[in-house]
Amino acid sequence: MMRKRVKAYLGIAVGVILGVLIHGLTADAPRGQTTRTSQPGLYLDLDEIRAIANRVRAGRSLQPASWPNGARVAVMISFDVDNDTIQIARNVEPSIGAMSQGEYGARVGLQRVVDLMDRHEIPASFFIPAVSLVLRPEMVDVIAASGRHEFAVHGWIHELNSELDAETERDLVIRATDYLEQVTGSRPVGYRAPSWNFSPNTLDIIRGQGFLYDSSLMADDRPYELMQNGEPTGIVELPVEWILDDAPLLNPRGNSYSPPRELLQVYIDEFDKAWEEGTMFLLTTHPHIIGHRSRMVILEELIDHIQAKGGAWFATHEQVARYVREQAGL
Amino acid sequence: MMRKRVKAYLGIAVGVILGVLIHGLTADAPRGQTTRTSQPGLYLDLDEIRAIANRVRAGRSLQPASWPNGARVAVMISFDVDNDTIQIARNVEPSIGAMSQGEYGARVGLQRVVDLMDRHEIPASFFIPAVSLVLRPEMVDVIAASGRHEFAVHGWIHELNSELDAETERDLVIRATDYLEQVTGSRPVGYRAPSWNFSPNTLDIIRGQGFLYDSSLMADDRPYELMQNGEPTGIVELPVEWILDDAPLLNPRGNSYSPPRELLQVYIDEFDKAWEEGTMFLLTTHPHIIGHRSRMVILEELIDHIQAKGGAWFATHEQVARYVREQAGL
Amino acid sequence: MMRKRVKAYLGIAVGVILGVLIHGLTADAPRGQTTRTSQPGLYLDLDEIRAIANRVRAGRSLQPASWPNGARVAVMISFDVDNDTIQIARNVEPSIGAMSQGEYGARVGLQRVVDLMDRHEIPASFFIPAVSLVLRPEMVDVIAASGRHEFAVHGWIHELNSELDAETERDLVIRATDYLEQVTGSRPVGYRAPSWNFSPNTLDIIRGQGFLYDSSLMADDRPYELMQNGEPTGIVELPVEWILDDAPLLNPRGNSYSPPRELLQVYIDEFDKAWEEGTMFLLTTHPHIIGHRSRMVILEELIDHIQAKGGAWFATHEQVARYVREQAGL
Amino acid sequence: MMRKRVKAYLGIAVGVILGVLIHGLTADAPRGQTTRTSQPGLYLDLDEIRAIANRVRAGRSLQPASWPNGARVAVMISFDVDNDTIQIARNVEPSIGAMSQGEYGARVGLQRVVDLMDRHEIPASFFIPAVSLVLRPEMVDVIAASGRHEFAVHGWIHELNSELDAETERDLVIRATDYLEQVTGSRPVGYRAPSWNFSPNTLDIIRGQGFLYDSSLMADDRPYELMQNGEPTGIVELPVEWILDDAPLLNPRGNSYSPPRELLQVYIDEFDKAWEEGTMFLLTTHPHIIGHRSRMVILEELIDHIQAKGGAWFATHEQVARYVREQAGL
Repeated sequence: MMRKRVKAYLGIAVGVILGVLIHGLTADAPRGQTTRTSQPGLYLDLDEIRAIANRVRAGRSLQPASWPNGARVAVMISFDVDNDTIQIARNVEPSIGAMSQGEYGARVGLQRVVDLMDRHEIPASFFIPAVSLVLRPEMVDVIAASGRHEFAVHGWIHELNSELDAETERDLVIRATDYLEQVTGSRPVGYRAPSWNFSPNTLDIIRGQGFLYDSSLMADDRPYELMQNGEPTGIVELPVEWILDDAPLLNPRGNSYSPPRELLQVYIDEFDKAWEEGTMFLLTTHPHIIGHRSRMVILEELIDHIQAKGGAWFATHEQVARYVREQAGL
Repeated sequence: MMRKRVKAYLGIAVGVILGVLIHGLTADAPRGQTTRTSQPGLYLDLDEIRAIANRVRAGRSLQPASWPNGARVAVMISFDVDNDTIQIARNVEPSIGAMSQGEYGARVGLQRVVDLMDRHEIPASFFIPAVSLVLRPEMVDVIAASGRHEFAVHGWIHELNSELDAETERDLVIRATDYLEQVTGSRPVGYRAPSWNFSPNTLDIIRGQGFLYDSSLMADDRPYELMQNGEPTGIVELPVEWILDDAPLLNPRGNSYSPPRELLQVYIDEFDKAWEEGTMFLLTTHPHIIGHRSRMVILEELIDHIQAKGGAWFATHEQVARYVREQAGL
Repeated sequence: MMRKRVKAYLGIAVGVILGVLIHGLTADAPRGQTTRTSQPGLYLDLDEIRAIANRVRAGRSLQPASWPNGARVAVMISFDVDNDTIQIARNVEPSIGAMSQGEYGARVGLQRVVDLMDRHEIPASFFIPAVSLVLRPEMVDVIAASGRHEFAVHGWIHELNSELDAETERDLVIRATDYLEQVTGSRPVGYRAPSWNFSPNTLDIIRGQGFLYDSSLMADDRPYELMQNGEPTGIVELPVEWILDDAPLLNPRGNSYSPPRELLQVYIDEFDKAWEEGTMFLLTTHPHIIGHRSRMVILEELIDHIQAKGGAWFATHEQVARYVREQAGL
Repeated sequence: MMRKRVKAYLGIAVGVILGVLIHGLTADAPRGQTTRTSQPGLYLDLDEIRAIANRVRAGRSLQPASWPNGARVAVMISFDVDNDTIQIARNVEPSIGAMSQGEYGARVGLQRVVDLMDRHEIPASFFIPAVSLVLRPEMVDVIAASGRHEFAVHGWIHELNSELDAETERDLVIRATDYLEQVTGSRPVGYRAPSWNFSPNTLDIIRGQGFLYDSSLMADDRPYELMQNGEPTGIVELPVEWILDDAPLLNPRGNSYSPPRELLQVYIDEFDKAWEEGTMFLLTTHPHIIGHRSRMVILEELIDHIQAKGGAWFATHEQVARYVREQAGL
C-alpha cells in the first residue's frame, strides 16, 4: 500500500513536470507542429492521398438503360427499425424516457407504416437490428403479413460499427444475419451499416459474408458497384443520403430541425428530378420517428405525389439490386 | 493550513490515480475495451437485454371504446408552470436576465393562457413546481378562479429528478405534493417528472405516493398502463411527446428552432389524426414560453381549429385518467 | 521576465491542485454530493429562495393609461451598433474574416437602416459600444443628421459585463458614457447591457450613474419599474426579448436559424397583439446583421405593416421612459 | 511491452495534468484574471484597438459608375469544388461515409452545375483545392469544355489556412497555384481562402504571389480595395457572405438548417436589392452540396428569376475584378 502511494506520488511528480514541459512546448510551439496533428493531410504525398481515397470508392454506374415494364423511375422505401436498441447499446443505465420514445416504434409506428405500404401494395425494405426483434418478436409477423417486404441486416443492437475492431464488428454482423434468418425463415442479402458509415473493415466483412448489396454510402443517387483499393467488388451500392432520412431533421431536441411539411417538399423535389432523369429514389425513415401522426402526413402525401405522377417501379432493395446486377451482366 | 495543504496533495494523488485509471480504461485500451464502456450493450445476453427493457414498460392500452358523450377525441391541454425555478435549482448565482425571462410566465404568460382557456371554458391541467408557487402565490387564485382546472405535481423546484438518489427524489416529491395540497386545498393525483424522464426510482416513488396517473413517458399516443419488471402497476400513463411541447423549438438561442406558425401546423396535424383515429391529443406548453404574443397565436388558432372540427372532449388529465381506468375496469 | 515565469508556474501549480480537488469533488462523489454542486437550489430554504429571486425583480407596471395623442401603441426601434467590437473584446488575435463581417455594419448596414428610419421620419435609439464609434467616428454624423435619434450606452467594447468584477464593470460604464457624451455633445440617459444580462452589480452601477432607464431585462412586454431586494429603484425598465432580436436567428453558422421572412411574421404577430392590447412594441436589430439586403426586407415590410395599421407612436426609448415616468408620477 | 506500458502511463499522467491545468487556469482564477484572458480587448488603449482593426481593412469602394453594356447589376456565380478534400486534410483515418458524400461532387454534382451554367451560357468561377483535381483529373475538362469558366485558387487540400504558420501557408498557396496552372494551362489570378478567413499572413502571401483579386472577406456587398495597416494594396476584394453560401444551411446534420426553397427566397431577396441598387450579386455554392436534386431547384429557379428580371451582367470573378480596377483607374 505504502509503496503504491510512493509510486503514485512519483507518478504525480513526473506527471506535473512533464505536464508543465509539454504545456510550454505546445503553448509556445511553432504552428507547424499542431498542424501535423490537426491537419495531417497536408503532409501526404499524392500517392498517399490517392491510396486513402481509393480504399472504398464508387466504381462503375449500375444505372440500367431502362427499368422493368417501362417504368420511368425505381422507388425504394426503406425503414430502419431501430426503436430502443441505440439506448441499450450505448448506456449502462439506458434512459427510461428515451427508451419509451423508441418503444413507440414497435407499439405504434411500425403498424402505421406497414398499413400504409400494404394499403398501397408497395413493397418496402426493413433494416432491423436483431435486438429490435428480440424485444418485439411480434414485429416479424406485422412486416411479413403481406409477403411483399424485405428483411435486411442493420447490425445486432445498432452498434456503432465504425468504432469497432474487425473481430467484434464481424461477429455482430454474423450474429445479426443468423438471427434474422432464424426468425424470418430466409437469409437476408442486404446490409446497411447501423452508423450509415463503414469502418476500415466493413467492406471486407460484407464481402466475406456474401451480401448482395450495401445501402450505407452516398457517392451517387444511382446504383453503383463498390471498389476496394481500385478493384471492383461485385457488391451493389444502393446509396442513401442524410437528405432522404427522417432522423436528422425531425428531432425537436436535435441540432437542426425542419418543419415536417418542408421536409416533404424536399422529398418531392428529390423524387421529381429522379423521375425526370429516369434514375432511382431511395427514402429511409424510422417507424419510431416517421410513425408519429404529424409525420405520417409526409409519407402519405409523398406516396400520393409519386402515384399521381405515374411511372414508378416500387421495389425492395433486393429486387433493385438483382435487377441492376443482371442488366450490368455482373 | 498545513493540514489543508496535505489534504490538497492527497486530493491530487487521488485525482491523478483516478484519472490514470479512467484514462487507462478508455484512451489507450485496445478497441474492444473502449467499446465495453462506450457500447456496453454489445456485451449483454438476451435475458439481460430483456430485463433492462422491461424495467419500466408500456403495458395494456387504456384507449377506451368510446369517449364520454360520443366525443370523437379527448383533448388534454397542460401547462408546465416552471417560470424561473430551473434557474434557481441549477445555479449558485442564477442569471438575472434568465430569471426575468422566467418571471414573464408569472407576470404575463399565465394570465394570458388562463384567460384563453376560461374564455373557451376549456379545462386544463397545470403542472407546477412548488417553488413556482412559493415565489408567486397569487398564481393559485388565477388558476383556481374558474374552478375548472387541475393542479398537478411537477417537482419541488423543477429538480432534474432523473439525476437524484432515491431518497432525495422521494423527499422532494412528498414536499411538492404536500405544498400543493396546502395551498390549493386538495391533494394532487397527477405527476409529471420535471425532467420528463424517470430515474430508476421514479416509478417506485409515485406508486408509493399513490398517484393516479403519470404524464412523462412517450411509448404511445393513447393512454396505457405502466408495467414494472413485467408486472402491471395500475398507474395510468398519459403520454407526452417533445413533438407536442413548446419548449424545444421556440427558444431563439436553443439548438433547434421552428417558426411558431410551423409549429402550429404540426400541432394541427397531430390533432387531425387523433380525431380521425378517435384517440387523444395531449399538448404541453409553458406560460413563460407560449405566453408571448407571437406564440399565443398558436394556442388561439389551435383551439379555433379543434372547435371548428367538433367532437372534442376537452378534459383535465385527471378526468381522462379516471375515465380510462373505469372503462378498463381497473 | 524570470519572475513572471515563476509566477506563471506557481499559477499552474495552484491550477493543478484546484482542478484535482474540484474534479475529485464532482466526478467521483456519491450522487447526493454532485447534486449539491449541480443542483444547489434543492438545498435552499424558502427565505433563501425568495431572497435570490428578489435581488433584481420587476416592480409595478408603468404601462400608462394612454399613449400621447391617442396613439394605440408605442413603437420603439432600437439598433445595437456592435459591428466588430465583440471580436476585438474577446480575442488576442481577432479573426480577420469575422471583423470584416462586423465592419459591414459601419460601411453598409448603418446607412441603410438610418436611411429607412429617416425616409419614414421614425425616431430610433442607437445603443453603441464606445469603441464602435472610436473605430468609425463618422457614424456619429450619420445617426445625428436627422436630429431625431437617441444615442445610448451599450458598454465600452461590448464587454461581457455579466462576467466582470464590480470595479471593472463600473469603470467601463463610466468610460463609455463619458465617450458618448464627448462625441455626441449630450449625456446619454439610457443603458443596455452588452450581454443583455445583469451581473450582481449592474443595477447598483446604473443607479449610481443616474440612468433614466434600462433596456436589458425580459419580465414583461410593458414598461415596468425595477426593484432591488424588494425596494423600488425609480429606474424604468423597457424590456427586450430574444424573440425581438435579429441576432440569434439570422446567423447561418449559429445554433438556430429562421428564414428571414418567417422572422418578419413573428415580429408582425408580436406587434399585432401589442396593438390590440394597447401596450408597446420594442424591436432590437443590429446594422451588421439586419443591414444585409435580404434582411432589410424585414424592417421595410414591418414598418409598412405598422404604418398601414395606424395608431403607432414611434418614439425613442428616452421619450417613452420619460412619458411613462411622468404618467406614473415617478 | 513493459516499457510500452510505462510510457503509456507517463502519457496518461501528462494527459490528466494538462486537462486539470486548463481547467485550473480558466475555472478557478479570480474574475479579473479570467477577464484578462477571456476578454483581452478590455485592456487595450485606443491606438492598440485601431491598429488591430486596421491590419486588414476595407478601403475605397470599387463600385463602378456603370456596368458593361448598360447592365444594371453584375452577377458572379462561384463554385467551391471541395468534394472530399476536407476529410483527407483533417483526419488520419478519414471517414469512408463522409468521403463518399464528397465524392458525390465529382461524380454527380459538378456535371449538373456545369450543365446548368452551359445551358444558360453563364460564365462561372470554380475555386478548386488542387487535391480535388488530383483525385478527379477529369473535372478539368468538364469545367473547361465551354471555354467560358474561370479556374481559381482555393488552397492545396482545403487546408484551414487561418491556422497555419506563414511558411506552410505560403508553400501551399504556391503549390496549389502551380498545380492549377499545370493542369489548366493558364495561371489563376483569383484567390479564395479555404477557410473563408485570413490568417495574419494571408494578405502578405497573396500580394507576394501577385493575385489580381481575393474573394474571402465580407465588409461590403460591393467590390472594394483591400487595405493593409492603413495602406492601399491594389488587391480587389469581391466579397462573399455566409448568407450567400449553400454550405452552412443545407447540412441536415449541421448546427442550423434552412429548407432549401427558403434559402432560394433569401438569394432572390439579396439579388433583388442588388438589382435595385445597381451593385453586384456574388453567390457561392458547392457541387457536392447544391448538386443534389432537391438543391439544384435553388440554382435553376434563381437563374430563371435573374434572367426574367433582365439587366444582369453574368461574369467571372476575374472579369469583374479587371473591369472595376480599370474603371477605378487602378
